[in-house]
Amino acid sequence: MSKEYLAESVTTVSAMESDGLSVFFPNGGYQCFPLRHRQLSTRAQDNEETPELWAKGTRQMRTNRNDVCRWLGAFISVATFFLVGFVIGWFSGHSGHDTKGSTVSNRGKFLNEMKAENIRAYLRNFTQLPHLAGTEQNLRLAKQIEKEWKDFGLDSVELVHYDVLLSYPNESNPNYIAILDENQTEVFNTSLYEVTPPGYENIPNIVPPYNAFSAKGEPEGDLVYVNYGRTEDFHKLHRELGVNCTGKIVIARYGKIFRGNKVKNAILAGAKGIILFSDPADYCAPGVNVYPDGWNLPGGGAQRGNVLNLNGAGDPLTPGYPAKEYAYRYNTAEGAGLPKIPVHPIGYHDAEKLLKNMGGQAPPDKTWKGSLNVSYNIGPGFNGPFAKSKVKMHIHTNNEVTRIYNVIGKIRGASEPDRYIILGGHRDSWVFGGIDPTTGAAVVHEIVRSAGKLVKQGWRPQRTIIFASWDAEEFGLLGSTEWAEENAKVLQDRAVAYINADSSIEGNYTLRVDCTPSLNTLVYNLAKQIPSPDEGFESMPLYESWHKKDNWTENRDAPRISKLGSGSDFEAYFQRLGIASARARYTKNRKTDKYSNYPVYHSVYETFELVEKFYDPRFTQMLAVAQVRGGLIFELADSPLLPFDCKEYALALKDYADSIYRLAKVHQAQLDLYRVSFDALFSGVENFTKAATDFHERLKSIDMKNSLQLRIVNDQLKNLERAFIDPLGLPGRPFYRHIIFAPSSHNKYAGESFPGIYDAMFDIESAESPVKAWDEVKRQISIAAYTVQAAAMTLTEVA
Amino acid sequence: MSKEYLAESVTTVSAMESDGLSVFFPNGGYQCFPLRHRQLSTRAQDNEETPELWAKGTRQMRTNRNDVCRWLGAFISVATFFLVGFVIGWFSGHSGHDTKGSTVSNRGKFLNEMKAENIRAYLRNFTQLPHLAGTEQNLRLAKQIEKEWKDFGLDSVELVHYDVLLSYPNESNPNYIAILDENQTEVFNTSLYEVTPPGYENIPNIVPPYNAFSAKGEPEGDLVYVNYGRTEDFHKLHRELGVNCTGKIVIARYGKIFRGNKVKNAILAGAKGIILFSDPADYCAPGVNVYPDGWNLPGGGAQRGNVLNLNGAGDPLTPGYPAKEYAYRYNTAEGAGLPKIPVHPIGYHDAEKLLKNMGGQAPPDKTWKGSLNVSYNIGPGFNGPFAKSKVKMHIHTNNEVTRIYNVIGKIRGASEPDRYIILGGHRDSWVFGGIDPTTGAAVVHEIVRSAGKLVKQGWRPQRTIIFASWDAEEFGLLGSTEWAEENAKVLQDRAVAYINADSSIEGNYTLRVDCTPSLNTLVYNLAKQIPSPDEGFESMPLYESWHKKDNWTENRDAPRISKLGSGSDFEAYFQRLGIASARARYTKNRKTDKYSNYPVYHSVYETFELVEKFYDPRFTQMLAVAQVRGGLIFELADSPLLPFDCKEYALALKDYADSIYRLAKVHQAQLDLYRVSFDALFSGVENFTKAATDFHERLKSIDMKNSLQLRIVNDQLKNLERAFIDPLGLPGRPFYRHIIFAPSSHNKYAGESFPGIYDAMFDIESAESPVKAWDEVKRQISIAAYTVQAAAMTLTEVA
Repeated sequence: MSKEYLAESVTTVSAMESDGLSVFFPNGGYQCFPLRHRQLSTRAQDNEETPELWAKGTRQMRTNRNDVCRWLGAFISVATFFLVGFVIGWFSGHSGHDTKGSTVSNRGKFLNEMKAENIRAYLRNFTQLPHLAGTEQNLRLAKQIEKEWKDFGLDSVELVHYDVLLSYPNESNPNYIAILDENQTEVFNTSLYEVTPPGYENIPNIVPPYNAFSAKGEPEGDLVYVNYGRTEDFHKLHRELGVNCTGKIVIARYGKIFRGNKVKNAILAGAKGIILFSDPADYCAPGVNVYPDGWNLPGGGAQRGNVLNLNGAGDPLTPGYPAKEYAYRYNTAEGAGLPKIPVHPIGYHDAEKLLKNMGGQAPPDKTWKGSLNVSYNIGPGFNGPFAKSKVKMHIHTNNEVTRIYNVIGKIRGASEPDRYIILGGHRDSWVFGGIDPTTGAAVVHEIVRSAGKLVKQGWRPQRTIIFASWDAEEFGLLGSTEWAEENAKVLQDRAVAYINADSSIEGNYTLRVDCTPSLNTLVYNLAKQIPSPDEGFESMPLYESWHKKDNWTENRDAPRISKLGSGSDFEAYFQRLGIASARARYTKNRKTDKYSNYPVYHSVYETFELVEKFYDPRFTQMLAVAQVRGGLIFELADSPLLPFDCKEYALALKDYADSIYRLAKVHQAQLDLYRVSFDALFSGVENFTKAATDFHERLKSIDMKNSLQLRIVNDQLKNLERAFIDPLGLPGRPFYRHIIFAPSSHNKYAGESFPGIYDAMFDIESAESPVKAWDEVKRQISIAAYTVQAAAMTLTEVA
Repeated sequence: MSKEYLAESVTTVSAMESDGLSVFFPNGGYQCFPLRHRQLSTRAQDNEETPELWAKGTRQMRTNRNDVCRWLGAFISVATFFLVGFVIGWFSGHSGHDTKGSTVSNRGKFLNEMKAENIRAYLRNFTQLPHLAGTEQNLRLAKQIEKEWKDFGLDSVELVHYDVLLSYPNESNPNYIAILDENQTEVFNTSLYEVTPPGYENIPNIVPPYNAFSAKGEPEGDLVYVNYGRTEDFHKLHRELGVNCTGKIVIARYGKIFRGNKVKNAILAGAKGIILFSDPADYCAPGVNVYPDGWNLPGGGAQRGNVLNLNGAGDPLTPGYPAKEYAYRYNTAEGAGLPKIPVHPIGYHDAEKLLKNMGGQAPPDKTWKGSLNVSYNIGPGFNGPFAKSKVKMHIHTNNEVTRIYNVIGKIRGASEPDRYIILGGHRDSWVFGGIDPTTGAAVVHEIVRSAGKLVKQGWRPQRTIIFASWDAEEFGLLGSTEWAEENAKVLQDRAVAYINADSSIEGNYTLRVDCTPSLNTLVYNLAKQIPSPDEGFESMPLYESWHKKDNWTENRDAPRISKLGSGSDFEAYFQRLGIASARARYTKNRKTDKYSNYPVYHSVYETFELVEKFYDPRFTQMLAVAQVRGGLIFELADSPLLPFDCKEYALALKDYADSIYRLAKVHQAQLDLYRVSFDALFSGVENFTKAATDFHERLKSIDMKNSLQLRIVNDQLKNLERAFIDPLGLPGRPFYRHIIFAPSSHNKYAGESFPGIYDAMFDIESAESPVKAWDEVKRQISIAAYTVQAAAMTLTEVA
């Protein structure tokens, strides 16, 4: 559907300019985007009537509307400054308070100042060369950003460095996998690099596909296909099929879960190496051409990526502490999260060769079958001797302590400089970073420019805003985590919120937001005041298109908001420090688009052209994301009363408690036998709900002119998220300390609610000692009940 | 010396009344104590001229001075209200700020309102019956205190309960130790109870001497004398003498270190039981009679006490979490800190019997010899077969989950109700609690009464004051720790300081203060404005007598202030939560008084009469302690700028760094070989010093009328202590999280600075792997350097 359109339409839009006035409209009056494009194709035929249709139009302009839009835009831009006080008054009225008109007009100015063409220009500029963490090129980009942020008008900008463990292929001894014949001769070798995309042929320093932090080694052996390498896949192999992976090399397809979890599972299963491949079933959309003719992954493309199981530790050699000059470093053998076996990623052309050469048993069911023209046998070791060829891995990747650089910029808060709103996203990329992260970094750059412009005009937010360009995210969220570690003492007291700014698109269908529940209301209110970039929603708010395209029907009639998991730089701030966090980006259609991530993810084919031709040719989706991210930091930094909604947290807690209880009730007999009760948890949630309701009720009567009284309730609001942090951490995961949310133990990307209870119940039917296992469930329920209860206490009257 | 005096003089003072006006004087004008005593002996002959002489006079009145004093007192009391604004202005001027006159006069009122005779009356009232934790009697006392605090005028008072593991002797199966003859016949049994002191013969519910949480059991075996049972004692036995304690029953004398550490050492040495006895060398002062004729421990007296190694965990069954209805409880076998072997305390009469019956080798040197008329042989197992008799322990003590009750009272702060100053001390006692804790509880009661009176007059402190009467301190600081756990989320944000109020006397020589370095200056300033109760210092400030009697000469020319260790209820607040803490009491002469603690500590002989006759007959030392404790909470609660001195912390850090480096340099060859450097730590201390100096410099220019600006710097001051907390805790001690201070791993009572480094270096010459051991030293130096550096960052400009 939308992919077909993407595939055929993109080449017609190559570059654009705009002189249009981009106006930020309050609810009810929405801007057009009177951009002038150098080349523009009008696409007449819209051959589908489904809601998903709206996704398509955002990538083109209806030129015949441009003039009307321009006049309308100008009119509304004038009208706006009259109406905006009233509208925002209504907006703020939801919290029962007045907001200064100046704040409103400044927010309008701030969001309207952002321009799609600037985002385009920054994306173009930042993606010309590879910016791998730890390289000279990425340091140069850091210095460029430092200089430009200063020029934009920030109060201070500095580079902050850490010396962390990174991992690079050995240039003189490349990684590959061979198929051996019966004479141990290597009859096939996987490719050493991806074919460079057009226009980038002479660019040096393109790192070939590899899995960072792979162990070195040259294991050889029989190959076992393990599907996605998920916990349940290994369970199926081991428990249902009796396949023993010990001493085998396993091959798993990418997708569904974080690759580090696949590697961990392989290690637990006893494998001596793991090969990760991109199956077309997971990395090609039907009917879409491969890059550069479309946005599908070419057969020689492969997904780079680290395979750590850090569980939030940051730099593997300095877990819990910043990797500064004074840091004690573990030796690499003791480092946190480092895999003990070689790991290597390959494309589907090479994968087909390896899979074709497998003997053994056919895969257990059709869910194990990808779309390669091979049998996907599970390989030898199941019910017979080795049938065909063994494989041999050649992995020579080196771990090296390397200097990385964050760029940290600040706008000092006017009245509460000691309250911090952080907007952070990474700068480092595997190669060009066309989507990941530069669609995010370009958006941050435009937000900084817009904020700086306001500062130059004399504006200053109430609270301090910190902008961060993180390094080495791709190597385990290292730059952001080390900075969080270095500044932990200050942040735990002063940080109000962290807004993440990784890739701003991973699709072009609709908005996707993951955030702490207390930010739901702010996100919705903002989305109602930002124009939708989607075709068919011109002059409608982003909220409308988002709501129509991704309704949260199972829970409520509103756009879906998801739980925060991990896999990006908010992790240390949210999961470790308990700072209210949010992330927003444009995404694909979750109902129809079944491929994993976006197809060329972490390949050399993530280029500027990919984005401009296929994803967001007008850069208006990225602009919308910039306005969402920017709007969040603006409101958090400048609202007299912090825009957190504790009642939303109450609703979420009830939902999570219901959900974990539903899971538990599958084992009703054991619940009875071992006297496992969830009553305390539900009681805690009830108390929390009452405390949250009362708190917001009391807010209505506070004196908004009494800065100390405001500070007191704002401190309560700021600290609510902190209250969910348990200094003891989750079992075995000391740096995941949030009791309500954690990255899933089975998939780092996904957020799990009440993770302590969830993990205690996971696979409990197979527990060696059911008594002990159910005891641990009881203990975890008790910890959750305590935490919710204690959080409720933070919302009651302070004395 | 002073003991002799005590012994002979006390019986002459039996009861007293006072109608005198107790006036709190600013620096320069000091009150007399015109108390009228019913019976009073004038002691003419002062036959010593040493400074220690001053300690004596405090226990009597010079009646011929009374009239002069009364007039002088009246005059000064009037003059005070004129001068007090100026003087406190000077006092506050040290921080460079003005203080409202109202605050000053209120502090004057607050401290002057406190009366010695009230403290006496409360002590009398609270010590009539035993108040063992978990008993009906102690609940009744809680309810009485609750009611009286309400009557005094607190805004709210409530009982807060927890269900914690306590431990009681089995009433129908008493604990004792027997000497067996060669036929296994019990030829001698230790006594089952102490002889009740006169006047208490008919009081029920006196628990016999026992060690709470002892394991049950009836081990029998050879006895080995282990001196004080310290780490070094067991090292001497094992390494120098080759004595193997495995399977033996060991007998250790009380004193020098916390009894729980003795038990832990015994367990590590393989002992199957441990007997603790009070040696006269440690529990009798020379020339002093035993109670009731003096304040020495009678031969049948024994020291009760818990033998847990909780390391700050609180309730053994709910470590880290409050023991509320929803709590998950470990079963007793898994409980935190519970000893695995039987433990029992005996007096020196019984001890003599056991020691006389030992065979084996004489003690290694004279430092092992106590003052009993026995050989103090180390016992069989050294160089020969069993010589004389074996012993058999009969221990039937039961651990029981029992409800305990804290009394929590509050005065709501006027402008910053969300900032808490806590004054807490325990209420539970082993028997009558004559000294421990009721000299503290009576003082707290008088402080509450005085504060309540001010509240009734319309006063209200700027910040909230919380008064706590903790339960079950004697069972491992349980009441205070559970409350800290339940309120952790709120406290970590809101608590400004915790002032501990355990026994207010342990001697009657001079003031003793243990506190966080940032409170040094406040303590000194207060001591300069509180009259000394010491004879010879009449109309001089407490600071003068304190300075003269206990000069901190090795560090500076000022009264000694010590590090906080543990052993009382501040532990969870300071060592776990990082709340600035202090304790103050009257103590003995550290130079001359070589007995441990005070002799009748934790025996049935801790009575009201003990205190009134021998320790503080006029109750003026307790009054001084009340004024110190009360003055601390008043200043912390009501000073616009928090009275913390970060520069004192800087001085202390430098001192501790020098000290740990001196210790390390003993191993200079290893420091070189393993490249162990303390540079990063010293560099951190330097940065901290500069940050602290700059911070206080900036304070001079802040606008004291800007409540938000004040709040911002006050938050920095409040959070400084918090910055020293490492959520990962010290190695193996997750609830000791302060990186600068911890209870010594070898003696819970003592405070150790840079405990992580200290413990890593302890006995490092015996390390199995020196490389690993020195690596751990390096890691701990790095953590300390990071923590000091991070704390420094909290003091720099906030943005």
